[in-house]
Amino acid sequence: MQETNSGVTAPKGFRATGIYCGIKKLKKDLALVVSDVQAHAAGVFTQNLVAAAPVVFNKELLAAHPSGRAIVVNSGNANACTGDKGMEDARSMAATAAQELGIDAAEVFVSSTGVIGQRLPIEKIIAGIRNAVPLLSADAHTAAAEAIMTTDTFVKEAAVHFVLNGKTVTIGGMAKGSGMIAPNMATMLAFVTTDVQIHPTALQAAVKRTTDRSFNRITVDGDTSTNDMAIVLANGLAGNPEITSTVEPAFTAFCEALEAVLVKLSKMIVMDGEGATKFIEIRVVGGRTESEATQAARSIANSNLVKTAINGEDANWGRILAAVGYSGIQFDPGEVTIHFGDVPILTKNYGIDFSEEAAAAVLHGREITITVDLHQGNAESIFWTCDLSKEYVAINANYRT
Amino acid sequence: MQETNSGVTAPKGFRATGIYCGIKKLKKDLALVVSDVQAHAAGVFTQNLVAAAPVVFNKELLAAHPSGRAIVVNSGNANACTGDKGMEDARSMAATAAQELGIDAAEVFVSSTGVIGQRLPIEKIIAGIRNAVPLLSADAHTAAAEAIMTTDTFVKEAAVHFVLNGKTVTIGGMAKGSGMIAPNMATMLAFVTTDVQIHPTALQAAVKRTTDRSFNRITVDGDTSTNDMAIVLANGLAGNPEITSTVEPAFTAFCEALEAVLVKLSKMIVMDGEGATKFIEIRVVGGRTESEATQAARSIANSNLVKTAINGEDANWGRILAAVGYSGIQFDPGEVTIHFGDVPILTKNYGIDFSEEAAAAVLHGREITITVDLHQGNAESIFWTCDLSKEYVAINANYRT
Repeated sequence: MQETNSGVTAPKGFRATGIYCGIKKLKKDLALVVSDVQAHAAGVFTQNLVAAAPVVFNKELLAAHPSGRAIVVNSGNANACTGDKGMEDARSMAATAAQELGIDAAEVFVSSTGVIGQRLPIEKIIAGIRNAVPLLSADAHTAAAEAIMTTDTFVKEAAVHFVLNGKTVTIGGMAKGSGMIAPNMATMLAFVTTDVQIHPTALQAAVKRTTDRSFNRITVDGDTSTNDMAIVLANGLAGNPEITSTVEPAFTAFCEALEAVLVKLSKMIVMDGEGATKFIEIRVVGGRTESEATQAARSIANSNLVKTAINGEDANWGRILAAVGYSGIQFDPGEVTIHFGDVPILTKNYGIDFSEEAAAAVLHGREITITVDLHQGNAESIFWTCDLSKEYVAINANYRT
Repeated sequence: MQETNSGVTAPKGFRATGIYCGIKKLKKDLALVVSDVQAHAAGVFTQNLVAAAPVVFNKELLAAHPSGRAIVVNSGNANACTGDKGMEDARSMAATAAQELGIDAAEVFVSSTGVIGQRLPIEKIIAGIRNAVPLLSADAHTAAAEAIMTTDTFVKEAAVHFVLNGKTVTIGGMAKGSGMIAPNMATMLAFVTTDVQIHPTALQAAVKRTTDRSFNRITVDGDTSTNDMAIVLANGLAGNPEITSTVEPAFTAFCEALEAVLVKLSKMIVMDGEGATKFIEIRVVGGRTESEATQAARSIANSNLVKTAINGEDANWGRILAAVGYSGIQFDPGEVTIHFGDVPILTKNYGIDFSEEAAAAVLHGREITITVDLHQGNAESIFWTCDLSKEYVAINANYRT
């Protein structure tokens, strides 16, 4: 498997673009991703009961037929909590794109991100789609990735290729953060394209499996959004023998590559978390089950007190242990050991004879790994998060204005 | 029922004191509360699996016999994650207090609050207890309340009296916040005294019932502490006929008065939440059950995005609805209405024709009530929280130093 500096147009037969249509202030706010041929589609969506119109729209589309040709995304307005009008606007977006592309309206997925509860400026979006279609190109992946950003400070793209039965398969993706990020769902917006040939059922299984180990393993602020979605289009142009089951080696190889793309995007989302100054990898090892290890890791990753301590480069390991304590899993606190990077901070039986200087050196870095060993078994899990800074508060205190 | 400006020495037969013994920097850090006669005792404790030594110590004491005479508390060091040494230190605190007071060591509860994971400076505490006992007095309630503070900016005391079968019964209490405050436990430290005559089983039931409607209804940062406890001593000196069951009217009257004291202390904890600039009361009404209404209210109260919006006085109601959406309860988002104070913000079917000026006027206040009506039934619940400010981050980024 090889990484390349590309995005959603890396696989064969995909074009994209991103333009400014007038929703945000002088920043790109409309993206299009289109497959030249019919593609299989799969997706995962927010588990928030208050689901935005595009989430409802896409779920209905996928339930009817797991395929599609295009994705149209606007930023600056989430089309969430907008009732019937919101659904109407979602349908208009899809219909306009379909008309301009000369395809069926049922082949277009829609997505929106931004402020909740305001109606979409649909006239601007319709005009924008008309302007965007002629600009579609096989190398405009970054323009598309820019156009889906909200408070993100950098574009989030990833692409890999690998060989499957003699054919080169490519996967490309883009995502956006960077607030209202919490685990246990298809976090935020991510759009992935691939030219692999795969049966839709296997594709959906691959998306579910890899999402659970990427987007569902990150948190910025514990708030589960109304708009989260990850959609994958697979157009088959790589020409590999179709992957038809979840047990064949080709499926495993595809999942591995897809996971690499999604993990890279996930880490970028956290790295660019609102106000983040530190990227934190939390490894819980020595657990009884992966699910318990994940539960403990998620609890640490969501703790405001852990995140502020890391912001202040303070080796406050007690808050880490406390967060495992209220995570709901059973364990013996006296057995737990904690490392910051390679530096042992807590040894068994609450041994805390560590060097503040060594700990400070680790915490001073931009990327910090915290390892918590429960010494119960062999299961482990990883969670990614960022610190909680004054800037997070500043960004979110006046988001609507 | 009548409120008075007093604290733990308000009821008959209680003395207290608070002194500086050298744990913190030139601030009172050791409190004593003593009943002149044997008292029944009841308590609720943190549900964090990583429980500090004093929590373990007091639970064992209460399990052996629900009575006691004294509570000794230090601030500046939590005696948490300190293993066998921590238990030894807790025992020393109790033994020293017992010796100086001339009572049995099994009649002394201990409590600690402050930094996690450092061993108590037990010699200072032992010397402090010896210095403190001669200073015990029937009007030093505020000195005691000061000595249990950590990042608190004001003392938290409450007292009420009411007449029960012709006898005046008094309840006094003190508490401390103000970080690592999260619901679903006996939040933080609270010590309550009363001269009511009550059977220990009824006393424990009263503490459980009223804690669920006070300390378990507040959150500052969603972090459940290792040291939370609320302990109530009832010495019977009011001379009322003993309350022996949970069904008699006297029990209800006592619970009402106890709840008033605990709710007042709870609100003070939130009002003084780390970095707080706003006190927020979240009322969820029109729920199917009280437990569902509480679940929705807790989810709103714990949302960093809701709390930062209130910090910025931004009427971002979408974040409130989103937090109900991921709370886990079932409801129809289109049926929900939201008020800020008396100002309707969201009406049914996502009606959002509100005056930004009127909303801003409410949000500009120091105390804000948010009412969310689910329009499902008649159940309701209240939760209290504070905003999330840059100051919270500043306080917690460098707490150990």
